[in-house]
Amino acid sequence: MKGDATIPPGDMSPDEFRRHGHEVVEWIARFMEDTERYPVLARVAPGDIRKALPGQAPETAESFDAILDDFNRVLMPGMTHWSHPGFMAYFSITASAPGVLADFIASALNQQAMLWRTSPAATELEEVAMGWLRQLIGLPDSFEGVIYDTASISTLHAIAAAREAAVPQVRQLGLAGRADVPRLRVYCSDQTHSSIDKGVILAGLGHQALRKIPSDAEFRMQPALLRAAIVEDRAAGFLPMAAVATVGSTSSTSVDPVAAIADICAAESLWLHVDAAYAGPTAMLPECAHHFAGADRADSLVMNPHKWLFTPFDLSAFFCRRMDVVRQAFSLTPEYLKTPDGARNLMDTGVQLGRRFRSLKLWMILRYFGAEGVRDRLRAHIRLAQDLAGWVDAHPDFERLAPTPFSVVCFRARPAGRTWTEGELASLNERIMTRVNASGEIFISQTVLHGTYTLRVAIGNLKTTGRHVARAWDLIQQALSAESQ
Amino acid sequence: MKGDATIPPGDMSPDEFRRHGHEVVEWIARFMEDTERYPVLARVAPGDIRKALPGQAPETAESFDAILDDFNRVLMPGMTHWSHPGFMAYFSITASAPGVLADFIASALNQQAMLWRTSPAATELEEVAMGWLRQLIGLPDSFEGVIYDTASISTLHAIAAAREAAVPQVRQLGLAGRADVPRLRVYCSDQTHSSIDKGVILAGLGHQALRKIPSDAEFRMQPALLRAAIVEDRAAGFLPMAAVATVGSTSSTSVDPVAAIADICAAESLWLHVDAAYAGPTAMLPECAHHFAGADRADSLVMNPHKWLFTPFDLSAFFCRRMDVVRQAFSLTPEYLKTPDGARNLMDTGVQLGRRFRSLKLWMILRYFGAEGVRDRLRAHIRLAQDLAGWVDAHPDFERLAPTPFSVVCFRARPAGRTWTEGELASLNERIMTRVNASGEIFISQTVLHGTYTLRVAIGNLKTTGRHVARAWDLIQQALSAESQ
Repeated sequence: MKGDATIPPGDMSPDEFRRHGHEVVEWIARFMEDTERYPVLARVAPGDIRKALPGQAPETAESFDAILDDFNRVLMPGMTHWSHPGFMAYFSITASAPGVLADFIASALNQQAMLWRTSPAATELEEVAMGWLRQLIGLPDSFEGVIYDTASISTLHAIAAAREAAVPQVRQLGLAGRADVPRLRVYCSDQTHSSIDKGVILAGLGHQALRKIPSDAEFRMQPALLRAAIVEDRAAGFLPMAAVATVGSTSSTSVDPVAAIADICAAESLWLHVDAAYAGPTAMLPECAHHFAGADRADSLVMNPHKWLFTPFDLSAFFCRRMDVVRQAFSLTPEYLKTPDGARNLMDTGVQLGRRFRSLKLWMILRYFGAEGVRDRLRAHIRLAQDLAGWVDAHPDFERLAPTPFSVVCFRARPAGRTWTEGELASLNERIMTRVNASGEIFISQTVLHGTYTLRVAIGNLKTTGRHVARAWDLIQQALSAESQ
Repeated sequence: MKGDATIPPGDMSPDEFRRHGHEVVEWIARFMEDTERYPVLARVAPGDIRKALPGQAPETAESFDAILDDFNRVLMPGMTHWSHPGFMAYFSITASAPGVLADFIASALNQQAMLWRTSPAATELEEVAMGWLRQLIGLPDSFEGVIYDTASISTLHAIAAAREAAVPQVRQLGLAGRADVPRLRVYCSDQTHSSIDKGVILAGLGHQALRKIPSDAEFRMQPALLRAAIVEDRAAGFLPMAAVATVGSTSSTSVDPVAAIADICAAESLWLHVDAAYAGPTAMLPECAHHFAGADRADSLVMNPHKWLFTPFDLSAFFCRRMDVVRQAFSLTPEYLKTPDGARNLMDTGVQLGRRFRSLKLWMILRYFGAEGVRDRLRAHIRLAQDLAGWVDAHPDFERLAPTPFSVVCFRARPAGRTWTEGELASLNERIMTRVNASGEIFISQTVLHGTYTLRVAIGNLKTTGRHVARAWDLIQQALSAESQ
């Protein structure tokens, strides 16, 4: 009889899920307790993990216990622990417990909010949680928010929207083979993140369309040079289209003068995109609000809760004052996705049709910590960075190489009492970094600031305390001593 | 004393995480047991969820219990349940239990595999798991795999790579203001997914660059028309650049003749991208392999394990025979990301710098079910769809509107014994769908095939059994009866 067909093989049973789920909870809780017992930087060589795994998928099913055993045995030694309190490289991030639990629920529910009706809850919670975040960082309600996966994708949408606004009929006609479209220009500083480069390339503008304005001694874009570049480019027949101002650049966390850049963009009809991927949350702090002066006049702004708002990877928050332009660029509804409800559909706000239920973790994190709790935590990280900056400044053999407006300290060893070439200093500091990172306790990174090799210590994990920052400083000093012998 | 600074406020404690983690495991297990007790299609109206939530973030911290209560009370009624066995709309997907557990671990570890050294395990497991998948679907080892979030992004990379291969110095010079670059052309069928449209727009080619080749009576691209279009376009001064062949189109799961299209692409030097986002896993079945004949000659292919390979959203698998071109288009390493290890860095293979640890769930799922278990499950879904197709064919008041090569059945009611206009049939079938979807038991969707309003029933969730498909068929017949009175 129809309907009585053999039940097909299904999923793990709920009881089996219970058993393994509770095991995984215990595993994660122990990992939270023991994170410092793992080396922060993985100690494997390229190929080690790959060689330890079979070259082919198993033909028959394996037990979840066996899989977890291999996970512990083979994969765990290959982790660089972004959750370690000694992780002070790149930007230090946190998968906070409420965020991890929210992500767990999101995975199980598997909501896909392409259309309102395919997940009213995910669609509207995104609006609500992004509204909360918008108010907390002081943006006016003329900004509409949408969640993407990464700042690379948020920025890509900003560039696409700027192109849509600047080039007549670009959605339909594109850029190639048109006598009426000149070469385009996007402006950023020499400190701007590489995602701008990739976005400009992908949008078909060509890398040469990105003109990098020199930064000043504190690594801030120089507005006078931006203005001069625009004038020069217009005279040469280019079409200036957009500018990117950064609040908290990746190398040094420098802050571009957003208000001055906003003035220029308004006068020249350029799209202004503000990249606050890292430092955005500090707009919640009255004492940091001045860094964001002028951001309310931006056309778009990106900040990443997965950087410094305790959110497990990935969640990038994109705010746009002209979201209609984003929709104009991308909205496109095939027959099979037409719905009668007239609701706002998230698929219209971008390239990706499918959308994981990311708003759940943002909402749970903001509630669990509360606005006050978020501000307290940001302030604690900034204070830890100021402590380290003070120790660097007070030490005769070290020098700070950039201001420390947020939670990243840029400096180098420069032992007193002799003359150094830049090459010698670069080599010395690279060796210091290598020694510190070999400790397994602390992981720091490097950059080059206006040609100067620079050590970066980034604070931002919820487990990082004064003890860890002090230990980092001890290890750095010890490494200098060892290198000086 | 330095280092004894006040410990800053941190995360939820491990013990608190234990308590809430175990609660969430129990919640998810009950949800797995009880999914059918929820209406599959949410019964809220636009704005209901938003209005039930505060307009501002709380100033002070709230308990996780209170947050979970609100989640249950406010958000759960706003879910359309993609995990419900009666979810037969769009493509039916599964967040399998091993995949959910893997995602939970991935969230907690918060690995970010931009560089090899920032997660050797995530970097190399991606290589291993994608190698397994590549072999399972029968692609040669000349294809390199990389994981993105969605097929929209995979396809975007295919288009960007095709542009890189076709347009001299496009990375540097872009498309605008160049006398040496004519208008470009990308070819697909009139059944191709909207992600191609969005990718072509974003890449700056313009929507008009996408030429849609008419499909035949079985919704397959007609190679002779593709060839003629290319000839015509070359004569008119266009530069043909790429073609997209689909195996399992979204509307009807039709299969383009990949081998014939591959012949044309080879002869005309076009990049061939195969969109197998939905049907890709069936390449593991010998009885389906013929649908993929010629795919080994594609330049790139996308399939989405988050569609029909039991993987929680999101995970899209991109295979490319010319990944060097993708790298040539996007590889770009700022000073702060330079590393001495010489390893392959995933950040070089695309636009997104940040990468969630997605390979973990793919690896765990392939091991937990095993290749044989995956094939059994795919076959079960295909069999269920064939059953329904048979019932439709045998019923005098229904007609099938497309072949059923995989697990989606396209059909409509067309009651015998009277003459219908197309408009009347569209209206009748829309009312049938609305009645079925109001049941809360089953959720189906619609499309338009060559102008004909069509009902779509998509099978693909691991919990869907013959009982659910039979119930869908009963509800559809009942709806027709109700509408016929």
